Amino acid sequence: MKKLTVNAKTKNYDITIKEGLIAEILDYLQQDKKKFLITNNTLEKLYPDLVSSFENKIVIKDGEEYKNFETFEFIINELLKRKIERKDLILALGGGVVGDLAGFAAASVLRGVNFVQIPTTLLSQVDSSVGGKTGFNTKYGKNLIGAFYQPESVLIDTNFLKTLPVREIKTGLGEVVKYSFIEKNCSDDEKIHLSKYLDEADSNNLDFKEIIYRSVALKASVVSKDEKEAGLRAVLNFGHTFAHSIETITNYKKFTHGEAVAMGMKLAFELSYNLNFINKEYLDYAFNLIDKFNLAPVYKIECDKDEYINIMKSDKKVSNSKIRLVLPTSKGEVKIFDNIKEDDIKKVL
Amino acid sequence: MKKLTVNAKTKNYDITIKEGLIAEILDYLQQDKKKFLITNNTLEKLYPDLVSSFENKIVIKDGEEYKNFETFEFIINELLKRKIERKDLILALGGGVVGDLAGFAAASVLRGVNFVQIPTTLLSQVDSSVGGKTGFNTKYGKNLIGAFYQPESVLIDTNFLKTLPVREIKTGLGEVVKYSFIEKNCSDDEKIHLSKYLDEADSNNLDFKEIIYRSVALKASVVSKDEKEAGLRAVLNFGHTFAHSIETITNYKKFTHGEAVAMGMKLAFELSYNLNFINKEYLDYAFNLIDKFNLAPVYKIECDKDEYINIMKSDKKVSNSKIRLVLPTSKGEVKIFDNIKEDDIKKVL
Repeated sequence: MKKLTVNAKTKNYDITIKEGLIAEILDYLQQDKKKFLITNNTLEKLYPDLVSSFENKIVIKDGEEYKNFETFEFIINELLKRKIERKDLILALGGGVVGDLAGFAAASVLRGVNFVQIPTTLLSQVDSSVGGKTGFNTKYGKNLIGAFYQPESVLIDTNFLKTLPVREIKTGLGEVVKYSFIEKNCSDDEKIHLSKYLDEADSNNLDFKEIIYRSVALKASVVSKDEKEAGLRAVLNFGHTFAHSIETITNYKKFTHGEAVAMGMKLAFELSYNLNFINKEYLDYAFNLIDKFNLAPVYKIECDKDEYINIMKSDKKVSNSKIRLVLPTSKGEVKIFDNIKEDDIKKVL
Repeated sequence: MKKLTVNAKTKNYDITIKEGLIAEILDYLQQDKKKFLITNNTLEKLYPDLVSSFENKIVIKDGEEYKNFETFEFIINELLKRKIERKDLILALGGGVVGDLAGFAAASVLRGVNFVQIPTTLLSQVDSSVGGKTGFNTKYGKNLIGAFYQPESVLIDTNFLKTLPVREIKTGLGEVVKYSFIEKNCSDDEKIHLSKYLDEADSNNLDFKEIIYRSVALKASVVSKDEKEAGLRAVLNFGHTFAHSIETITNYKKFTHGEAVAMGMKLAFELSYNLNFINKEYLDYAFNLIDKFNLAPVYKIECDKDEYINIMKSDKKVSNSKIRLVLPTSKGEVKIFDNIKEDDIKKVL
């Protein structure tokens, strides 16, 4: 078992990582609280005993396309119909869609009820379950509505990964590799750095408990310093401004999020190299690491380059219509730039 | 001009009260920010020049029945369609419906954009615009979804009261009189106490600037000590548990909120007297003060008393299905009780 603490400004909470944790889930939850489980129909099928052991359960449809107003309203109404009270507890059992929706429902219903994240995908275990970002998508873009709302705790069981499709493992690894490229921004503590570990790892035989622990520790370190994305937290978006545009252009259908992030990181590395921020050696190292885990599909951006730039500008972290880019500047380190010329961006597309 | 500061845990902000403030509104708003005005169609008709002076305006229908999911979704989509950014400013021009909806939209869109409350009714000027409670109604009850989200500032122009119907003035006075009954819980500062002022006031010739200032100062004092309703803030609900039941039974149509609160306070005073918490002299004083402003319509509760009790139990501040009541215990002071017998409550209905 591995344990760590997030010290966010609004709340301190523990993250527990353990193989088989879910079998003893009740030991990790306050006994005297009424619990409301929110999960999806795929998990209900895969883990029928677990899901049916909760009296109050709300099952939503599996898929990013259900991360919308309609499902949010459904969850809120189900919670209210079952007479949820402020002192009750919401459990989010699922990937990022369930976690983000359940988290925002917890933040909003009765103006705030406590909730516990139980992420079941590698992507949500290393990323979305930690840090308190909740919300859902609108027709204008992803996660454009939500709240910063920290969970009571995060419970991670690596056994869930056994039923996860390979492509879903890879999308999680996309974020893991990202952490290795920003590890020095996140923390000085080399014990939680990822790059050396990933360099030496056998890509066919990964120790997920270790990978998750280091990823989450790096993220927790950033969130503890900047809960609401006022500054430092932006480094977590490395690769993401490019990735969001790729996802938008392909209607979020062609690639997983991790694939888009891996492709986005490659574009960011190329751009950095063209601008002389990094040398050829680091560029090659980065491409090799991404390719070692086979994370970035080869893809030629088919849309008009001006349109691509416009999509980048519609990102919610945009300020005064300037594109904010996180670019690598040295090994394990990135910086935030507001002044990259559009022509330079177009060159790498 | 009168000015005071709310020192909430998450934000400090100013409240400015001035006759004619709206004519110089732009002086009170940061010049360099892009502004999004949210208001309703009644105000658009009454103040066409003011509303049309804003380039980005979102006009919702006037009425409590529009304080729902649909209008919330409409506002969010309008903000996103106009490409709102995190550093922009939302202005809520209207009564409680506009303020609560716009405030929750500000809290949620892009996970949080600053907003300014410009309350136009007496009720919102003395109550809902201050303290950061935002949200909307669902079919299961009022304000069951929302956020605690403080505004950047509150701008109160008493001139708006000139176009307000008498009954709307009275609903505001219901809350004003409530503050006088809880003033000692709110603050030791007698300069902002209301009871002596209201005792001497001419009910046909009120100094609204003074009334609003004292009411808001009392509320600000409570919110500064307890932003998220963990304890003290509950005293602000004096009269409200009874009032919410009366409003639910009558489908929110028969009485204004202030009328229901005035009736609710009378029930609370009677109950307190029956339980020997207060003497006959204070009971008579309270009834006389409420009647001096002609606030509480005479109404016999027509529904079954058990049903009434059940409705009281469905209040969102309920804990473990116990009815929490705020009852007067001495002049200007109330206490919170969780152990009042249902039979005692039924006697006053």
